[in-house]
Amino acid sequence: MRILVTGGAGYIGSHTVLSLQEAGHEVVVIDNLVNSSEESLRRVAELSGTPLTFRLVDLVDEAAVDAVFTEYPVDAVIHFAGLKAVGESVREPLMYYHNNLVGTLNLLRAMDRHGVRSIVFSSSATVYGEHNPIPYVEKMEIGANNPYGRTKEQIEDILADLGAADGRWHIALLRYFNPVGAHPSGRIGEDPQGIPNNLVPFIAQVAVGRREKLMVFGGDYDTPDGTCLRDYIHVVDLAEGHVAALDHVAGRAGVFRWNLGSGKGSSVLEVLHSFEKAAGRPIPYELTGRRAGDLPAFWADAASALADLSWSTTRTVDEMCADHWCWQKNNPHGYNALGAPHMTE
Amino acid sequence: MRILVTGGAGYIGSHTVLSLQEAGHEVVVIDNLVNSSEESLRRVAELSGTPLTFRLVDLVDEAAVDAVFTEYPVDAVIHFAGLKAVGESVREPLMYYHNNLVGTLNLLRAMDRHGVRSIVFSSSATVYGEHNPIPYVEKMEIGANNPYGRTKEQIEDILADLGAADGRWHIALLRYFNPVGAHPSGRIGEDPQGIPNNLVPFIAQVAVGRREKLMVFGGDYDTPDGTCLRDYIHVVDLAEGHVAALDHVAGRAGVFRWNLGSGKGSSVLEVLHSFEKAAGRPIPYELTGRRAGDLPAFWADAASALADLSWSTTRTVDEMCADHWCWQKNNPHGYNALGAPHMTE
Repeated sequence: MRILVTGGAGYIGSHTVLSLQEAGHEVVVIDNLVNSSEESLRRVAELSGTPLTFRLVDLVDEAAVDAVFTEYPVDAVIHFAGLKAVGESVREPLMYYHNNLVGTLNLLRAMDRHGVRSIVFSSSATVYGEHNPIPYVEKMEIGANNPYGRTKEQIEDILADLGAADGRWHIALLRYFNPVGAHPSGRIGEDPQGIPNNLVPFIAQVAVGRREKLMVFGGDYDTPDGTCLRDYIHVVDLAEGHVAALDHVAGRAGVFRWNLGSGKGSSVLEVLHSFEKAAGRPIPYELTGRRAGDLPAFWADAASALADLSWSTTRTVDEMCADHWCWQKNNPHGYNALGAPHMTE
Repeated sequence: MRILVTGGAGYIGSHTVLSLQEAGHEVVVIDNLVNSSEESLRRVAELSGTPLTFRLVDLVDEAAVDAVFTEYPVDAVIHFAGLKAVGESVREPLMYYHNNLVGTLNLLRAMDRHGVRSIVFSSSATVYGEHNPIPYVEKMEIGANNPYGRTKEQIEDILADLGAADGRWHIALLRYFNPVGAHPSGRIGEDPQGIPNNLVPFIAQVAVGRREKLMVFGGDYDTPDGTCLRDYIHVVDLAEGHVAALDHVAGRAGVFRWNLGSGKGSSVLEVLHSFEKAAGRPIPYELTGRRAGDLPAFWADAASALADLSWSTTRTVDEMCADHWCWQKNNPHGYNALGAPHMTE
């Protein structure tokens, strides 16, 4: 199939583009490069030995989106593009709602006009909110508790209503847990701008000397070692989950929801120690107070994806840390080869 | 104050414009006239004896929205514009989400750019969904059960996040119950296109001979006469509620939610008989099966609006029917003076 990937130059996007190419699909990427680098796509093509098409397009530009569908007839869309920092979304909700909702609505309308009605959407475990019991199961009522998460929830609602209204749509809503790691080649990986929002990129920057120490938010949770538990998933497992979901929905109309997670929780300190082992050096850290909005623990019920997609995670936290470290030490300043500071740092 | 009213040519919009003018405010209306007529505004100006400004603008046109704020510096916005038919929203969800969300986001971004941060938003009792006990109270968790309602819920969420992020915003979310009636002059009123979605406009078209009989959906509900109970509110009471809400939020930053309803339920047959009395003629009707999605009964807890705004409804169902009938008999084909059928009929 020929697949349009929005946000394909980003962290999960670039790994998924590679998995799509490895599975024999042709890929067209659009990305506004606001939070990503075209260099990731150059390296993806180098790894796969297969060219791909890239167009610099912002989804909020409706005419530009439409033009892509005219120029490249595609069979399906994988939709990653979107702003994704929880804290920033709390401070700048209008920016988040505008970017994520208007972008998605422009995409869906263009798809409908061009008769492309298969989509795999990047949702997030954050849609489960703070009231559901763990592990999270797809049939639970969703309800996010921050603007970023609400954009994911709202887009899920829009897609569900669309699928209910028009039986020609094939829709997969993928709820990611905590993606970490990198392609084992160390050529592509996560390249956060500014201060990393997530645990492993922060640890990696400490390990490589870009930051002094890790702040661990809360050591007094009711968990085995007192730190938060999360369901970490290797980004290559996650990418393969997208290919499996795409294959599944391509043949079936309807709206499908799958958790993409390992089905178990790991603590902050477990991940930290795993990373120390991978990097062969201690990671300085400081236990500090809990952070507002953090849940003590959550992980996926991963049974549906296994049953429906014959997909499950195969890579351990140790492998995630080893691969993340390989990427970080080979690319201490991410895709910015000169090592110049990012503009937002 | 100078107030921008979006959707000001519509049913509730036009009555609110008149109430605003009567309260001494200057009014600028924008409307795309998709579901309304500029004739309503001509009549509002005639009733008030005060001119108003009208610009034909669709909120999905970001540049046009911005230009209005440049041309007319305003103090606050009352935001009515939006598609509003539940059944149509189920069939055409993309159209609803695009129109209502993109329109609102364009409006809010333009307001922010121009430093206008007071808004009164048309929400709906439909945001209470189907799981809340009656009467509905503002502090309940919301959750709509159709795409139209979800656009209202999502816009409430966007506005609440915006108010939480930026203390300069003054935001009123008004949850309407069931507006009926018309200005007692009979000069302005509800002019639905096609088959009316709501009870009283349908009854009125039966009474005036445009339709043969009313279908009453369900006579076996657990209510006093077996038909559904709703909280009907005279559109002039509703319009005055907007003026009260505007006055309140103008002086206070924050996010406020008020039900605008009478606080009591009336049955379909009560309203029917009240309308028969007003029109002086029998209204043929047929009891038929329940309609999917209809709740048996709901009404407002109207205490908050009374406490905060010193506002409550003062007009009875008999007055609503009398005024609605006065409008309908004087304007059997709505604002379309020639009596030609609407294009969608």
